[in-house]
Amino acid sequence: MQLYGNFGSGNCLKVKYIAEATSTPYVLHEIRTRSGQTSTPEFLALNPAGQMPVVVLDDGRPLAQSNAILRYLAHGTRFIPADRYDAAKVDEWLFWEQYSHEPTVAVARARVVYDKQAIADLDPTLVGRGNKALDLMEAHLTGRTWLVGETITIADIALLPYTRQAPEGGFDLSSRPAILRWISACEQELGLPALGAEASKEQSHG
Amino acid sequence: MQLYGNFGSGNCLKVKYIAEATSTPYVLHEIRTRSGQTSTPEFLALNPAGQMPVVVLDDGRPLAQSNAILRYLAHGTRFIPADRYDAAKVDEWLFWEQYSHEPTVAVARARVVYDKQAIADLDPTLVGRGNKALDLMEAHLTGRTWLVGETITIADIALLPYTRQAPEGGFDLSSRPAILRWISACEQELGLPALGAEASKEQSHG
Repeated sequence: MQLYGNFGSGNCLKVKYIAEATSTPYVLHEIRTRSGQTSTPEFLALNPAGQMPVVVLDDGRPLAQSNAILRYLAHGTRFIPADRYDAAKVDEWLFWEQYSHEPTVAVARARVVYDKQAIADLDPTLVGRGNKALDLMEAHLTGRTWLVGETITIADIALLPYTRQAPEGGFDLSSRPAILRWISACEQELGLPALGAEASKEQSHG
Repeated sequence: MQLYGNFGSGNCLKVKYIAEATSTPYVLHEIRTRSGQTSTPEFLALNPAGQMPVVVLDDGRPLAQSNAILRYLAHGTRFIPADRYDAAKVDEWLFWEQYSHEPTVAVARARVVYDKQAIADLDPTLVGRGNKALDLMEAHLTGRTWLVGETITIADIALLPYTRQAPEGGFDLSSRPAILRWISACEQELGLPALGAEASKEQSHG
């Protein structure tokens, strides 16, 4: 499988995590939105929406949208519940992530990390929505190990990258112990290095 | 099945369409965001995100996120392709709809229809993004009848309501013949009345 994106992007990290967890070999082709590389005719042929990540399957067919890729790669594995209702609750989290979490928590972080905006100058509405999303996760994870059911699913994998990176956008996780515990559980399950170590490595990509 | 929402909302209309297409009986409980009815403790117990639609299945368990509901109700029917790649492309459209289409095309319409903002005063960035989403659909549907494969799927059902309502937000469909043809095909397949008739009926709900 060919993966177009970069691991500074949480949406791309999701694909990395599920590919490695399901032993799906892939070749990373580094693509940068801010260098215009998602606007070239070649890239738009893979994804007319001009968004990364995109994977190209071994038969040459492309697939975009990180959470659609998660569902595809996790098909038939333990990362999607066999129970139909539990699988639907996983979907509920996937859609919520793209509608309410990524456009707030990740966007605030991008303004700080890439646009060099000061945390204090972030749009208060954006910050408020991000905090609301994190509060919802904190409430849900209080008393639970995983978002859905008794084991890690692609719901956890979809929420993990941008939640881990949230402090870079000024969001406080120290007051959200359930989220911190859940991050550790995900790291352990996925064999990831501790947050600080990986975050430093990612930032070195620029 | 209990359905909480209202049919002035495209996200709720999706659920109506798939429920009727799959002969899933439901009882509608009219809920209005702008009357605070998605912020009551009773509603937040069904969906902590405070968003409609929510369905409550016959065993009492709730499910939120319109596209997660679509996937649940369409499970095992002709509205989800049996082919794994085609099913993934349906997912790609579902996530794109919630990330790039609903937050632009539907939000612009809501500003006009509910907030009584003049079309000329809409945020140009919002309008530009909405037009970009509609252009992407127009290009994709040129030479195709359906978004994925040779038959209607939940990708079409997810995109239909807010695309049909787009002119209410000032978006021009007359210059997008492939979209107009696709809307007619969806109407015919789902047994919907012509656009004008249903739009008038929906607006009468306020």
